[in-house]
Amino acid sequence: MKKFLVVYGLLLFQCVTAQNEPVDYVNPFIGTSNFGATHPGAIAPRGMASVSPFNVAGRTDLNSLEKDSRWLSNPYVYENKFLTGFSHVNMSGVGCPELGVIISMPTTGSLKINHLNYGTTYSNEEAKAGYYSAELDEYNIKAEMTASTRTGVSRYSFPKGKSNILLNLGLGLTNEQGAMVKIVSPTEIEGMRTVGSFCYNSPEAAYPVYFAAEFSVPANEFGAWKIPSKYEGEEAQWMTYNGETRIKKGFTREVIGDSIGAYFTYDFKEPTSVELKIGVSYVSIENARENLKKETGGKDFDAVYAETRKSWQDKLSVVEVKGNNEEDKHVFYTSLYHMQIHPNIFNDVNGEYPEISTGKIGKTEGTRYTTFSLWDTYRNYHQLLSLLYPEEQLEMVNSMLEIYDENGWLPKWELNSTETFTMVGDPAAVILSDTYLRGLTDFNVEKAYEAMLKSATKTENNPLRPGLDEYIKNGFVSVDSGVAGPVSVTQEYNIADFAIAQLAKELGKEEGYQKFLKRSVSYRELYNPESQFLQPKHENGRWMEGFDPLAGANFSKNPGFIEGNAWQYLFMLSHDAEGLIKLMGGEKAYEEKLDAVFEKGHFDMANEPDFAYPYLYNFIPGSENKASKQVNKLLNKYYKNSPDGLPGNDDTGTMSAWAVYSMMGFYPIIPAKSVYTITTPVFEQIKIKLNPDFYGKDSLIIRKKEINNQKNKVYPLMRNNQVFPNFFISHEDLVNSKELIFLTPEKE
Amino acid sequence: MKKFLVVYGLLLFQCVTAQNEPVDYVNPFIGTSNFGATHPGAIAPRGMASVSPFNVAGRTDLNSLEKDSRWLSNPYVYENKFLTGFSHVNMSGVGCPELGVIISMPTTGSLKINHLNYGTTYSNEEAKAGYYSAELDEYNIKAEMTASTRTGVSRYSFPKGKSNILLNLGLGLTNEQGAMVKIVSPTEIEGMRTVGSFCYNSPEAAYPVYFAAEFSVPANEFGAWKIPSKYEGEEAQWMTYNGETRIKKGFTREVIGDSIGAYFTYDFKEPTSVELKIGVSYVSIENARENLKKETGGKDFDAVYAETRKSWQDKLSVVEVKGNNEEDKHVFYTSLYHMQIHPNIFNDVNGEYPEISTGKIGKTEGTRYTTFSLWDTYRNYHQLLSLLYPEEQLEMVNSMLEIYDENGWLPKWELNSTETFTMVGDPAAVILSDTYLRGLTDFNVEKAYEAMLKSATKTENNPLRPGLDEYIKNGFVSVDSGVAGPVSVTQEYNIADFAIAQLAKELGKEEGYQKFLKRSVSYRELYNPESQFLQPKHENGRWMEGFDPLAGANFSKNPGFIEGNAWQYLFMLSHDAEGLIKLMGGEKAYEEKLDAVFEKGHFDMANEPDFAYPYLYNFIPGSENKASKQVNKLLNKYYKNSPDGLPGNDDTGTMSAWAVYSMMGFYPIIPAKSVYTITTPVFEQIKIKLNPDFYGKDSLIIRKKEINNQKNKVYPLMRNNQVFPNFFISHEDLVNSKELIFLTPEKE
Repeated sequence: MKKFLVVYGLLLFQCVTAQNEPVDYVNPFIGTSNFGATHPGAIAPRGMASVSPFNVAGRTDLNSLEKDSRWLSNPYVYENKFLTGFSHVNMSGVGCPELGVIISMPTTGSLKINHLNYGTTYSNEEAKAGYYSAELDEYNIKAEMTASTRTGVSRYSFPKGKSNILLNLGLGLTNEQGAMVKIVSPTEIEGMRTVGSFCYNSPEAAYPVYFAAEFSVPANEFGAWKIPSKYEGEEAQWMTYNGETRIKKGFTREVIGDSIGAYFTYDFKEPTSVELKIGVSYVSIENARENLKKETGGKDFDAVYAETRKSWQDKLSVVEVKGNNEEDKHVFYTSLYHMQIHPNIFNDVNGEYPEISTGKIGKTEGTRYTTFSLWDTYRNYHQLLSLLYPEEQLEMVNSMLEIYDENGWLPKWELNSTETFTMVGDPAAVILSDTYLRGLTDFNVEKAYEAMLKSATKTENNPLRPGLDEYIKNGFVSVDSGVAGPVSVTQEYNIADFAIAQLAKELGKEEGYQKFLKRSVSYRELYNPESQFLQPKHENGRWMEGFDPLAGANFSKNPGFIEGNAWQYLFMLSHDAEGLIKLMGGEKAYEEKLDAVFEKGHFDMANEPDFAYPYLYNFIPGSENKASKQVNKLLNKYYKNSPDGLPGNDDTGTMSAWAVYSMMGFYPIIPAKSVYTITTPVFEQIKIKLNPDFYGKDSLIIRKKEINNQKNKVYPLMRNNQVFPNFFISHEDLVNSKELIFLTPEKE
Repeated sequence: MKKFLVVYGLLLFQCVTAQNEPVDYVNPFIGTSNFGATHPGAIAPRGMASVSPFNVAGRTDLNSLEKDSRWLSNPYVYENKFLTGFSHVNMSGVGCPELGVIISMPTTGSLKINHLNYGTTYSNEEAKAGYYSAELDEYNIKAEMTASTRTGVSRYSFPKGKSNILLNLGLGLTNEQGAMVKIVSPTEIEGMRTVGSFCYNSPEAAYPVYFAAEFSVPANEFGAWKIPSKYEGEEAQWMTYNGETRIKKGFTREVIGDSIGAYFTYDFKEPTSVELKIGVSYVSIENARENLKKETGGKDFDAVYAETRKSWQDKLSVVEVKGNNEEDKHVFYTSLYHMQIHPNIFNDVNGEYPEISTGKIGKTEGTRYTTFSLWDTYRNYHQLLSLLYPEEQLEMVNSMLEIYDENGWLPKWELNSTETFTMVGDPAAVILSDTYLRGLTDFNVEKAYEAMLKSATKTENNPLRPGLDEYIKNGFVSVDSGVAGPVSVTQEYNIADFAIAQLAKELGKEEGYQKFLKRSVSYRELYNPESQFLQPKHENGRWMEGFDPLAGANFSKNPGFIEGNAWQYLFMLSHDAEGLIKLMGGEKAYEEKLDAVFEKGHFDMANEPDFAYPYLYNFIPGSENKASKQVNKLLNKYYKNSPDGLPGNDDTGTMSAWAVYSMMGFYPIIPAKSVYTITTPVFEQIKIKLNPDFYGKDSLIIRKKEINNQKNKVYPLMRNNQVFPNFFISHEDLVNSKELIFLTPEKE
């Protein structure tokens, strides 16, 4: 706790003295506790490389969350204290352990290569956009890190005397093993490390990440190590070294195996800083080296950091907020920052990247993105990109279509050109449709439509939509299908089908529109008016016995739902809010049930199925104020300028996108419908810079104006001096406005 | 047994029909039983690559000698029946498990990658110089193999239907693990495999052997596999695949880990032959590919085999023997064949090789040799090379001096640029001196002398001569020194010092001559006239208590000796035979003791310390006939044209060199003394082709002539029609003779 206070103090100090530019409001510690699963490491916008402190291995006395003692998905936990290095490829805000490899570690004194022995506590952490530093207690070393897009750069300030820099390729957050390392010269190491099996899926697709490491000071001595697996045969009796770590001093050829590493040692006559650059690539060592050279060649640590800070400043300045609420600005800009981590750049500087499933190396003229956690991001993340970073969103759409070309299927949860099949539904359709409907049409929409149709109609060997045959025949996936969470799956398919229908309509494909629109409400088959819940059904149409609307909370097993219970899924049907209201017997019943979600503690801010519930009050005329109230209550409760300042896994920026939208006062309530619903913004004024290439203008201003709120007579929005009649505004109207005034009730 | 009869029959057939060229007498099965540790695989003379059947893994019901159930040093055992592939780098005739990796295996039907499942019995084995074939019972596949110097070439004749070719990089004879594999295209695989820790020494020096594999028929499908180590942490509960083999179908990037492999699968419409070339290198994959291309590019299996057969024919024709004893010719030419396996070529076709201990890649204009089992080979092997292949011997001397340049020390038991420190003594000195003294002077003898002096005089941090300080001070290494086998070690140092003295004399270094000559007889300190044995002593000069002359036989622990007992070491002092005779009280006592060795069963033909004992009778005037008798008895008993036709480990050709010399009727009885002693040759006539560049003439003929043997009046040798007065002839006289007639007693 003491540590946190120190950092907090530093940040406050910073805010007072700095220019208060958007980049200065980034607090990378947000989300590093409470399972936010972000890391405070240095990264450039959408960087392939990042350098994160790695403090999740070993010493459960010091690390309350330890990677091998539990399910843990992050390389860093704020409360942990035992640091075992700095990992150079990392994921942010995900729910499964992966990457967290190519771990460097500076030490002093005699060489120790077991992380349990060389690990240390640390002090005086500092984290900014593109920068992290800490002091290593055992060694009196200051370790600083920054990063360009594909290269992690560290500066280790050593005291006088014997020192070491380790490159540990055994340790990692991933559960995969296997690495190669080769010391090229006293200033260069190259190698690769196997990663993969994200969320314990597709272990057979595990793949290497390559690296080239360059040291600013030549090693006095160097070597590699290998920890062999223990030999079990008779011969073990002659192997006095059985299972023991071998130190391969001066070794310059490849060392390969499940657990290996390399070290440089120094003997400094005076305190000395060593800069370490590690370029990464998913194509080859050569590309990793080229990435390093092209991005950081001739630049020292400070120069790389200055460039990366500038990149962050440019990215984050897309929104300028005004107001006296500094803490909210930290939350806001850190949320924007977290949205600029995944999806991340996958291609090397020369354009190359490994294609998905073809085994080939592809080449892009633009950017190939990866890390598509689409079950999360289809709900708000990509909508926000379409508004703030339309050029990025279009590149992502193109990446998704390339994935379709390569793999024959759109992505579901794609990571580094592997389809991990994590979570359910068919979310790509929503994103493609939504993007097009928001006016970002510069992609091959016919191919996109073809790809959507394929996953929506192919009933054999369809990896994206298991249970599709039942769904088409009966309107729902049954508990007999063998598909996990059949009610959730049915709802997700409905949402995807709604998206297809919307795009079909836009493209003038009337038949497709009608067909998929009809399919998009088939969830109604699962609505039981008696329980007033969606319930799992047998294939023959009979309700599954023993329905418990609470089953499924906290990830407990559940016959109907995935990562949620019946409360948390009931309203996840914004595309048919009117239909659901009707089913439930009217707006009052709908509202009462929605109230119950919040009042009875069924609401889960930490996961996606219900996280748009607060906005649903805007569907109930006269109760719209509840939306703003609830949204702002949740913002205050769950989003904070502190390590526990995210409600849970950031879900590759989805939780952050929720905050950004909510703090700006609007939200894309219906996936694949180009419309926002309105709540009270957090800031006095918000200036959104628009990309004129896409929106024909360069900005949009939102202002908050307090009014006397007369119940049942709220008119939330003024545009061009005209008051809008309801709580919804189309994307087109929003971006075409010069200034929007969000009317808000006076504070109670 | 049946199998052997079949082969034997084949060979007989061959002898009748073939031209009876030397190469046709090679029976690569000799030494594949009785722990000869040779393999019947295909290899070119001194080849870096070889392709051996690998039948020592798993199924102890079928494999009586299994690599993990006991100490086993060969990839193939004649009696074993369960074959699990064909290994592409192999050692021959050594006593420790090493190499036996890059294992290919053709199968049919569904893909199986565990050797316990895919292994098979086999039939109709055939082995010739540069060729091996067998039929795989399970699969109806004929597998044939040949090899160029650095490339193994296989031809697999598949039946119609589904077939597979596996490249198993997990399995191996070595105890090291760790490999990388990458499928480059449907006709090409590349990778590397860690090997090392020969004789369980220096595991930290384990190193990769690289390969490039080329298939003549593109795979229909391909993939890699990985067997991961089992995850022990909490997360194991979510890893349903924990520890299970992963099949990585279509995977084209590097797969790395402790146990991996790759496969090609085919679906043949008709019976089809696939040729597989695997080039190897100890430098890089690129070099392995270049080796393959340069040696076998554009050549099919038959063409490569024809070339390799020609190389063998050229090498083996260095001696032409005449007589009616066909079986002896098989033994003789197979012995010559076994002498052409190690030391083997280490540099790639472009001259590159990894230097020892520098970490650099060196480049040679000539040939860099490796696999210097010098404790074995200093006794006769290199002497025979100096006579038959002087150009090779000089290249080997140069390789030894390069090793000194790179490593700072001459080799002791060098393997692939690692010093394994196997066995004792300082054997390099003997070889360097002996070579020079035989007139092969075209090397840097001053450097050689300097190198010898270093190991003979440097008492601190001397890896070659442990216990040197005691030895210099007291003349012997004591049981208190911590050095294993101190009596053996003292004798070996004496022998090396004798060699240094001889070279010093030749170079006119009188001081060195005197000093080392004196040192060369210090073993006398260990002779106990009471027991008439060399005995271990304490540093203070007192005999160690409880001396047992039998201790140490059969590799049992022994305070005084290494790999032998007091009987087997007592006479290993031919350089001071006269001195020992004196010590023992005269020729009679010496002869009686020597008789006792043979009569009481103390003689061990399978190991080096005593294997020259039979020749020592030539030091006893009047008893010389015993030498011939004993030598020929041992030849008959231990050297046969059958798998058990070697007395034990071939010791990289040392046992074979013993046979070649003994069958020709002369033997280099004193290491580093350019002299031979004479016995009765096996053949009627022997024509030795000499290299005129070294010997000024191109051949030497030895003929056998039976005479009435009058006891105590033997004159064994006639040269230029003159009878020689004793049983010794200098190397110079031998090579300068046009024809030598070895007089031999009539058969009794």
